Amino acid sequence: MTVTAAQGFKAAAVAAGIKESGGTDLALVVNDGPQAHAAAVFTANRVVAAPVVWTRQAVSDHRLRAVVLNSGGANACTGERGLSDARDTAQEASTALGLEIGDVAVCSTGVIGEYLPMSKLRTGVRAAAASLAADNGHAAAEAIMTTDTVAKTTVVDCGGFTVGGMAKGAGMLAPNLATMLCVLTTDAIVDPQTAQQALRDACARTFDRLDSDGAMSTNDTVILMCSGARNVVADAGAVSEAVQQACADLSAQLLKDAEGSTKDIAIQVSGAATETDAVEVARVVARNNLVKCAAFGNDPNWGRIVAAVGTTSADFEPGDIDVAVNDVWLCRSATAIADASDVDLSGRELRITVDLHAGTETATVWTNDLSVAYVHENSAYTS
Amino acid sequence: MTVTAAQGFKAAAVAAGIKESGGTDLALVVNDGPQAHAAAVFTANRVVAAPVVWTRQAVSDHRLRAVVLNSGGANACTGERGLSDARDTAQEASTALGLEIGDVAVCSTGVIGEYLPMSKLRTGVRAAAASLAADNGHAAAEAIMTTDTVAKTTVVDCGGFTVGGMAKGAGMLAPNLATMLCVLTTDAIVDPQTAQQALRDACARTFDRLDSDGAMSTNDTVILMCSGARNVVADAGAVSEAVQQACADLSAQLLKDAEGSTKDIAIQVSGAATETDAVEVARVVARNNLVKCAAFGNDPNWGRIVAAVGTTSADFEPGDIDVAVNDVWLCRSATAIADASDVDLSGRELRITVDLHAGTETATVWTNDLSVAYVHENSAYTS
Repeated sequence: MTVTAAQGFKAAAVAAGIKESGGTDLALVVNDGPQAHAAAVFTANRVVAAPVVWTRQAVSDHRLRAVVLNSGGANACTGERGLSDARDTAQEASTALGLEIGDVAVCSTGVIGEYLPMSKLRTGVRAAAASLAADNGHAAAEAIMTTDTVAKTTVVDCGGFTVGGMAKGAGMLAPNLATMLCVLTTDAIVDPQTAQQALRDACARTFDRLDSDGAMSTNDTVILMCSGARNVVADAGAVSEAVQQACADLSAQLLKDAEGSTKDIAIQVSGAATETDAVEVARVVARNNLVKCAAFGNDPNWGRIVAAVGTTSADFEPGDIDVAVNDVWLCRSATAIADASDVDLSGRELRITVDLHAGTETATVWTNDLSVAYVHENSAYTS
Repeated sequence: MTVTAAQGFKAAAVAAGIKESGGTDLALVVNDGPQAHAAAVFTANRVVAAPVVWTRQAVSDHRLRAVVLNSGGANACTGERGLSDARDTAQEASTALGLEIGDVAVCSTGVIGEYLPMSKLRTGVRAAAASLAADNGHAAAEAIMTTDTVAKTTVVDCGGFTVGGMAKGAGMLAPNLATMLCVLTTDAIVDPQTAQQALRDACARTFDRLDSDGAMSTNDTVILMCSGARNVVADAGAVSEAVQQACADLSAQLLKDAEGSTKDIAIQVSGAATETDAVEVARVVARNNLVKCAAFGNDPNWGRIVAAVGTTSADFEPGDIDVAVNDVWLCRSATAIADASDVDLSGRELRITVDLHAGTETATVWTNDLSVAYVHENSAYTS
């Protein structure tokens, strides 16, 4: 069900021949309404792919009827031809579906700097439009996978309405989204402002705090489409909560499937003067290659954590820092207090806790370890 | 010769038993004068090791007669006891050498969070003081090695005077120094202000632009001692040039010996509006794990470079970016223009060139690739 769990949505997945592997590589999600309210959040990268340029414009009127997504090529750094290709993709879908071109979003993922095979892609869009069905949600989630090993889907049942969703992403996972595409759907009646606010807030607390490898993509897009098919006017708070729950669920699935990872690491910062400080400290630890290598090696190396915290400009006294690894406090007031060999690191889950003793704010950022497999996978991606 | 190449300096190296390996682990460098002018630059990390606290205070009067350096333990995150240990180390040297305690600097390198074995260290300091010689420069450089595979030394002959030096560092190499200790010596007569300015400028252009793994240490220290033994008053410009040459030489040696590296990568940014912008862009590329993995895999993946540049706040138009790898322009105006397979990546040297087309300023930052060996080495450091 997934992205089609909400009423009013159909999906399709086809093998358009974009991926050399021959697997499915093109997904289509269509909102049959009656409403077409939509919201979107995009990468904060200043270098954005052509489909991001197109979709930003398409969603600016807060309406979308369909999203075309392809794997096998990012259509990024492709100049005027890339922009024209993104527009032509939307045109093909709008013709096949009888929609306004401005109601069609386009998302792409794959290698940067290569042109899309437009003839194959156009044929694929027509085939997808001809095979739309409400039970194709899982197939659509599979079609957008790149280095992902499993499809990521979610359903949040809110009683009167449902939020469904799918996402992809396994590398270049960093703040302000990642190499990730995500389509969320709901059958509630949601006004555009509520949808945008709910989506922005949810992304800020979920996808934006997933920092697998510190690398930010050019293509990240999260779209929320609202069909109103259940004829239920959802309360803004309930929508916000449901969207955040869906994003948190997908975010956790992205973390677990991150390229080459052997650990899911939660970096929990407490005692911060501000939430911004807490996020800054957690993110710096999340991005520290020595901390990530230590996690891979099952080494509770708190000294590297303290050294990373010391590079931030957050408000704290360096002599006050406490650090725990998997709930064992190894360091109090920036000084060793326990034998690190007491820490059980055998599981996939790793909790790093930092108390700054500078206030009451908290934040958690999630990352993965830096493994031999990560290096292998990312040194052989295009060649 | 190395750190003792300049007249007026002696050194010693002993195996004090701090390192489990039993190798030399304690070095002493003494300035016999007649002058004792000194300058120093320290880590920008807010969490600093005890010897940094001690040495900052010792050098605040711009005078040093001796530096004690140990490997095998960083004496960082060791609280009051660590501060006391650093002071006791200086005291031991001052007694053995008949110097003021305030004229003795202390530097430590190794694992964070462990106490130094002070009894062994004190015995080592006395043994070192008893074995000082002008031809122990190389042995001193060897005694401060940790994960270094070769000793790093330099000599700059300026005609009337000499600058000598030694350094250590192979990981945690990031701006505002690295896990590195460096002692420079000169036999010129240099006033303290000239020495400090020359050292600060040299570090800013050399060690600070070496960003091997983005991780900043708690112990980084660069010291310059001036003996005046040649009785030559050196021109400020000549001193500055010589110190920068010595630092650049040592910096290049650190790069070549970085943990697990198979590539030395120079990221050259041109066309920047300001030098600060150029450094920011170069550093972001240097720290991008996907770019570093691609380098390890001999993959000229310029798309990852452009995506990294796009995450900065430097002044440029995203559509204007040009990228070359080993002098082959692969991307003009953020669009592919050449076949990346044309690039010869067989050597250890890799040049990434980014033209922002936003001005005339330039900067180069050096980094290494992210290799399987780096992960192996850093996942097994303490355990």
